Amino acid sequence: MNMHYEDYEVGSTRRSIGRTITETDIVMHAGQTGDFYPHHMDSEFASRNAIGQRIAHGTLILSVAVGMVAGNINEEAMSYGYDRIRFIRPVHIGDTITVTARIEACRTHPRRPEEVGIVEEVLEAHNQRLELVMTATKLYIVNRSDEGTA
Amino acid sequence: MNMHYEDYEVGSTRRSIGRTITETDIVMHAGQTGDFYPHHMDSEFASRNAIGQRIAHGTLILSVAVGMVAGNINEEAMSYGYDRIRFIRPVHIGDTITVTARIEACRTHPRRPEEVGIVEEVLEAHNQRLELVMTATKLYIVNRSDEGTA
Amino acid sequence: MNMHYEDYEVGSTRRSIGRTITETDIVMHAGQTGDFYPHHMDSEFASRNAIGQRIAHGTLILSVAVGMVAGNINEEAMSYGYDRIRFIRPVHIGDTITVTARIEACRTHPRRPEEVGIVEEVLEAHNQRLELVMTATKLYIVNRSDEGTA
Amino acid sequence: MNMHYEDYEVGSTRRSIGRTITETDIVMHAGQTGDFYPHHMDSEFASRNAIGQRIAHGTLILSVAVGMVAGNINEEAMSYGYDRIRFIRPVHIGDTITVTARIEACRTHPRRPEEVGIVEEVLEAHNQRLELVMTATKLYIVNRSDEGTA
Amino acid sequence: MNMHYEDYEVGSTRRSIGRTITETDIVMHAGQTGDFYPHHMDSEFASRNAIGQRIAHGTLILSVAVGMVAGNINEEAMSYGYDRIRFIRPVHIGDTITVTARIEACRTHPRRPEEVGIVEEVLEAHNQRLELVMTATKLYIVNRSDEGTA
Amino acid sequence: MNMHYEDYEVGSTRRSIGRTITETDIVMHAGQTGDFYPHHMDSEFASRNAIGQRIAHGTLILSVAVGMVAGNINEEAMSYGYDRIRFIRPVHIGDTITVTARIEACRTHPRRPEEVGIVEEVLEAHNQRLELVMTATKLYIVNRSDEGTA
Repeated sequence: MNMHYEDYEVGSTRRSIGRTITETDIVMHAGQTGDFYPHHMDSEFASRNAIGQRIAHGTLILSVAVGMVAGNINEEAMSYGYDRIRFIRPVHIGDTITVTARIEACRTHPRRPEEVGIVEEVLEAHNQRLELVMTATKLYIVNRSDEGTA
Repeated sequence: MNMHYEDYEVGSTRRSIGRTITETDIVMHAGQTGDFYPHHMDSEFASRNAIGQRIAHGTLILSVAVGMVAGNINEEAMSYGYDRIRFIRPVHIGDTITVTARIEACRTHPRRPEEVGIVEEVLEAHNQRLELVMTATKLYIVNRSDEGTA
Repeated sequence: MNMHYEDYEVGSTRRSIGRTITETDIVMHAGQTGDFYPHHMDSEFASRNAIGQRIAHGTLILSVAVGMVAGNINEEAMSYGYDRIRFIRPVHIGDTITVTARIEACRTHPRRPEEVGIVEEVLEAHNQRLELVMTATKLYIVNRSDEGTA
Repeated sequence: MNMHYEDYEVGSTRRSIGRTITETDIVMHAGQTGDFYPHHMDSEFASRNAIGQRIAHGTLILSVAVGMVAGNINEEAMSYGYDRIRFIRPVHIGDTITVTARIEACRTHPRRPEEVGIVEEVLEAHNQRLELVMTATKLYIVNRSDEGTA
Repeated sequence: MNMHYEDYEVGSTRRSIGRTITETDIVMHAGQTGDFYPHHMDSEFASRNAIGQRIAHGTLILSVAVGMVAGNINEEAMSYGYDRIRFIRPVHIGDTITVTARIEACRTHPRRPEEVGIVEEVLEAHNQRLELVMTATKLYIVNRSDEGTA
Repeated sequence: MNMHYEDYEVGSTRRSIGRTITETDIVMHAGQTGDFYPHHMDSEFASRNAIGQRIAHGTLILSVAVGMVAGNINEEAMSYGYDRIRFIRPVHIGDTITVTARIEACRTHPRRPEEVGIVEEVLEAHNQRLELVMTATKLYIVNRSDEGTA
């Protein structure tokens, strides 16, 4: 896929299929990150605190959500970061999330305005009750089309 | 550990031990997220493009870096998001990263100023050549001490 | 173990111990293969369709079944493929499968009849209700004994 | 995606991106299947036998290849098995495979000719030297379009 | 951390946070070790025998318990083995274990009494009903302080 | 398999096939146990200390070695612990271990002499240079044969 900066349209939206967050995902994310906090890994502890059950790591939900809308490779774009990631509600074992990705803004790159632009895509993850659980803004640097640089 | 909002000091810094990012980490992160892009998973493709070898997923580096400075549990604090995550340099298989976490700002919570404050901690991951590879700002909501709310 | 072509007997049968197919197996197989179809990974989707719950990947059941009857190494035999793999019934999380392997046919190799023969072994996987869930024919090329080549 | 039996065209071909088969993939496939044969898991043994290095499990290559061309979900099709899987050449750690999937045949279902047809898709996996390493025929049962059943 | 032989105090005790042993842990430990015994992996088999459900591998409980009290790195100490590991009660899926580590004995090294001492630490793992499930003695060789060797 | 206490013979020995300890095994064991010590996980740290490269966790070598000689299930025996585990030499990434298991002693059970006996089996793991890397004594409680209790 070759999609240039000029091809992005503010407001255009993609939507993922669903994925259930399992105990396996949490145990494997603890194993990948070394974060074995009892909020994620101790069902006794979790049942005694306010939330009442184990919760998924924030970085697990972010990582999975990003993967769920990875889509086709755009040879013209490069992901370079994220802004404003917020964990709105806890995700529990057995919750099923779906992710939407909406182009929020397209803006000129401050130092290389002729060559590339910056595209902001807002990801929103909802659970099976349609409650928003996470929001994040993904940032891409995208090549301008040859016409644009002429 | 019980550390209240008033106990945080701007400028105080923690530093992790090191961890080598392995091919296993990348393959398992692809498996956890479903992101099998050839930049991460195809050594032939990677050897032909500008970077020259496979690169770790951004969400892998973020997740591992956050885990590396997870430290002790503070019962008074709750992580609720991240700001300004930037992937400065690629991380390759065999690179070893170390993470520093520095308290950057402590500010009043806009809607609940008597109860909680917001603490911003800047994480920086460096590789074995002491090059900065990632920066991220982690946000905590922290309870004020009882004295503070009186 | 050294078992030559002449040592195989049509009708001889081996039987595995049982193994429960878990949510972990499915999540890990999705991670290994990149197949995150909602039939396997989305409990909400699965509960709404005809089957009613998540199903194991066909390649998971095949891979596990083959492993369950791997048995001892026969230095004289080489697996070179499979014929007629059929997924007869879905396997759900919590189902326990048992595998039988029966020698179905021994036949001359068309191009190297003096050296090797072809052995066909039929694998059948049953669930805990003794229902057939999968069948597959595994093919081996097996050395003839020295006497046979004389 | 909704693609009926009549929409399949013999000869139409899809092609995957590449994926490098890693030591991690082999170790995890051994762990998933229980097949720890030294051909896959013992580098000393492998270096002494004819092939000279560890080889990937056949079921690993099949599982990964199937996942690599999983593509979009077709609500009208159901995979029900495989025919004629052959492992043509060994796949070693560090080999990169690419998969093509070509519609080979479309034929009437013997017992339900009005409702569904059978589609045969041939998968071929090649390594980075463009050598064929595996071939398999995947079988789908596909709904006929409403017009077709009228 | 630099803690010399003379700094260890018999009777001093550390206590871990809790961790729930999950089905994922057992499946992954089977995959790491190749031990797929039905006591661990076959819920049908397990429900028919005296214990009534699947049990965690002994080496899983030992490995996890050791990790749970790994604590900070002591540059002066080297683990070199274990004595008297006993599995007192089975650990089932969903049980939550907590580990205490108590310095049991400090004794002179028989061959290098001037340089190092031997420290014995007894690990005890309890489940959520406060029943002892495992006990093990971990052995460290610890450098004596410079003063001690003078 | 049904092998009673009287059937064990002191000195009888089993020998496993070989298995290479990979970087994947170490990363997964860190993930399972939470032990991310730099001796195992930081190649830079390891290259600077006396041993010169990353070493496998002791509990990884024990777990894998035990799995490598798990053999057939003996319905009459129950593993209940280990004695005298010693890590003689470090195991590095790429080392291949082989395990021997020798019946060392058969002794009467102190409290139930009529019913069961205790069998001690010594496991020894060697690397590809035939150097001993680990030794452990596994303990079984084994039923006496009916004749024995008459």
